[in-house]
Amino acid sequence: MKHLFPLKPCLVTFLLLFILFTGCKKTTETLATPDQKAGEASSMSAEVADIAIEHLPSWNDTKAKQNIIAYVNEVTDKTNANFIPVEERIAVFDNDGTLWSEQPAYFQLFFAIDRVKAMASEHPEWKNKQPFKAVLENDMKALMDSGEKGLAQLIMTTHAGTTTEEFETIVQEWIKTAKHPTKNVGFDQLVYQPMLELLDYLRANNFKTYIVSGGGIEFMRAIVTEVYGIPSEQIIGSSIKTEFIYNDGKPVIKRLPELDFYDDKEGKPLAINRFIGKKPVFAGGNSDGDLQMLQWTASNSKKGFMLYVHHTDEAREWAYDRESHIGKLNLGLDQAIKDGWTVVDMKNDWKVIYPFELTKK
Amino acid sequence: MKHLFPLKPCLVTFLLLFILFTGCKKTTETLATPDQKAGEASSMSAEVADIAIEHLPSWNDTKAKQNIIAYVNEVTDKTNANFIPVEERIAVFDNDGTLWSEQPAYFQLFFAIDRVKAMASEHPEWKNKQPFKAVLENDMKALMDSGEKGLAQLIMTTHAGTTTEEFETIVQEWIKTAKHPTKNVGFDQLVYQPMLELLDYLRANNFKTYIVSGGGIEFMRAIVTEVYGIPSEQIIGSSIKTEFIYNDGKPVIKRLPELDFYDDKEGKPLAINRFIGKKPVFAGGNSDGDLQMLQWTASNSKKGFMLYVHHTDEAREWAYDRESHIGKLNLGLDQAIKDGWTVVDMKNDWKVIYPFELTKK
Repeated sequence: MKHLFPLKPCLVTFLLLFILFTGCKKTTETLATPDQKAGEASSMSAEVADIAIEHLPSWNDTKAKQNIIAYVNEVTDKTNANFIPVEERIAVFDNDGTLWSEQPAYFQLFFAIDRVKAMASEHPEWKNKQPFKAVLENDMKALMDSGEKGLAQLIMTTHAGTTTEEFETIVQEWIKTAKHPTKNVGFDQLVYQPMLELLDYLRANNFKTYIVSGGGIEFMRAIVTEVYGIPSEQIIGSSIKTEFIYNDGKPVIKRLPELDFYDDKEGKPLAINRFIGKKPVFAGGNSDGDLQMLQWTASNSKKGFMLYVHHTDEAREWAYDRESHIGKLNLGLDQAIKDGWTVVDMKNDWKVIYPFELTKK
Repeated sequence: MKHLFPLKPCLVTFLLLFILFTGCKKTTETLATPDQKAGEASSMSAEVADIAIEHLPSWNDTKAKQNIIAYVNEVTDKTNANFIPVEERIAVFDNDGTLWSEQPAYFQLFFAIDRVKAMASEHPEWKNKQPFKAVLENDMKALMDSGEKGLAQLIMTTHAGTTTEEFETIVQEWIKTAKHPTKNVGFDQLVYQPMLELLDYLRANNFKTYIVSGGGIEFMRAIVTEVYGIPSEQIIGSSIKTEFIYNDGKPVIKRLPELDFYDDKEGKPLAINRFIGKKPVFAGGNSDGDLQMLQWTASNSKKGFMLYVHHTDEAREWAYDRESHIGKLNLGLDQAIKDGWTVVDMKNDWKVIYPFELTKK
């Protein structure tokens, strides 16, 4: 599969899924955080051994980790003026680029491409019909030339037309065998170990953890509950319209080829309000698409914690920020610096990126 | 306030809220359930005294209660073939007519009417402008004559235009003083004591209880968490569109005068799928508007429990079913009988209707 396709961001719709990696900036801005120290490989083995007893064991003891622990200690202390009752401990996280990788393209795109190939035998006409022809011939240039209309056709063909149960099965079968094109491991192995630990740590302190992602809600639900320990009712995402069909006593919900809700930017606080009905106190993101969610969280009358994951590790993951076409972090980085939000420097704050690095040690 | 207004059901939109009580059938169909016995007033005091230790103390020991307890015992027994794991114990309930009364009109209509009156001083022009003139003059005939357009104007004027926080405060202030027109108690006192006990009983057995109602999601959330013990994230309802406004660092979500989602009939399973992402195993409703939710629940591969509250008590509550304009129960009653769902006969199955009857004893 070729991954070099000159593409401009499609901001209007669900199709942001298709914004690909061309143009990912390989250098990232270094924030002036003097108390951050580099991850020390030599001390890693000893610390990883303590994983069972230590908080956030895959985090270096830098400002980011210290901020998190200080915050959680403060707001869970009943004697502290900033104490937050359990029912208000709502923590929301973006998914792509915040809990798992998003390069060289959102993982859901690889699903769409693989799905076209899997469905091709039932659609001989696709050999001569764009955008399917482009996908089948691995011609990403032609795919992108098909424009938004072609991409919309691709996503609706691969994400709609089935029942919800069928779609869940399809995604679950796909994730079992699909491999990331450069990392060559399953996509669900490319979750961030330090973020898994953060989710656990928050839950251990009675925070209710949610995903609030631009990704498809049913695509995520089929995959990530097991990975993150987050049940389907706490996974919020973009959606297409659906239809209830009674079907002679065997009712189904059919997925329709029409966008229902795009859960990005302003959509994130709106979805949080609709699904949860409470303003979060903890929010984690990695891009400008998460900015409004962090702003909404920051406006909580209770003390909030706003966290940006900054992709700074070209060697172990990817490095990109202000000029990336995927996961662009520009306005968000400015506001984080201005307002003192916690910016996680992946290279320096995290001992490992992925869970499989732990077992390698 | 006059409550006699000749109205036909507006089925198309959120405006079902406005379908009023004219035409409520005063007689109800008696189901052939030979093992049901009438509530025995003489034994009530003794049984109510056992409230602290008995399951469902305000339920007579009739088939409905027996069915519920047998079901819960069965599906929570790890050694039983029908055991249901905790994470799949999803219980969904309609609100109007299932958890609280809905006569002589949905309580949210009384809010809209009171809200027009409260806002009238800022709108002197309403004195001569329909549908507001009709509301201010308690002329329900004229209000209904304003048709769907007038009713839409009424609901959008009273439910949109504020921020979400302002709306919550307005509803909470209203519920403190508003009185039901004939029962002459606060609307939040007109919840069904036996259903409160059922919610508690299910939660004690690790069911997660949800409201899935045609009522406005933010109207309900402002009121019912305290009443039912159900947090906002488990309250699903109809919604209007919203907008995120950054507002110079003090972001708000503004409520817009446009319908977003109507959570009734087919909308209920769709909303359950969207918000929860799991098929329920327990569903309670009282009208044909809940039928698809019960059908969806009945199609669970795990053993399900489908319950209809049947309004049979003209003396203590209201009696209506197949021909009522509010809470019409016709197709649902047929299917309940055919498929052996549990139909609660309010008159014979419930010792008391409302919580305040307990304290009177």
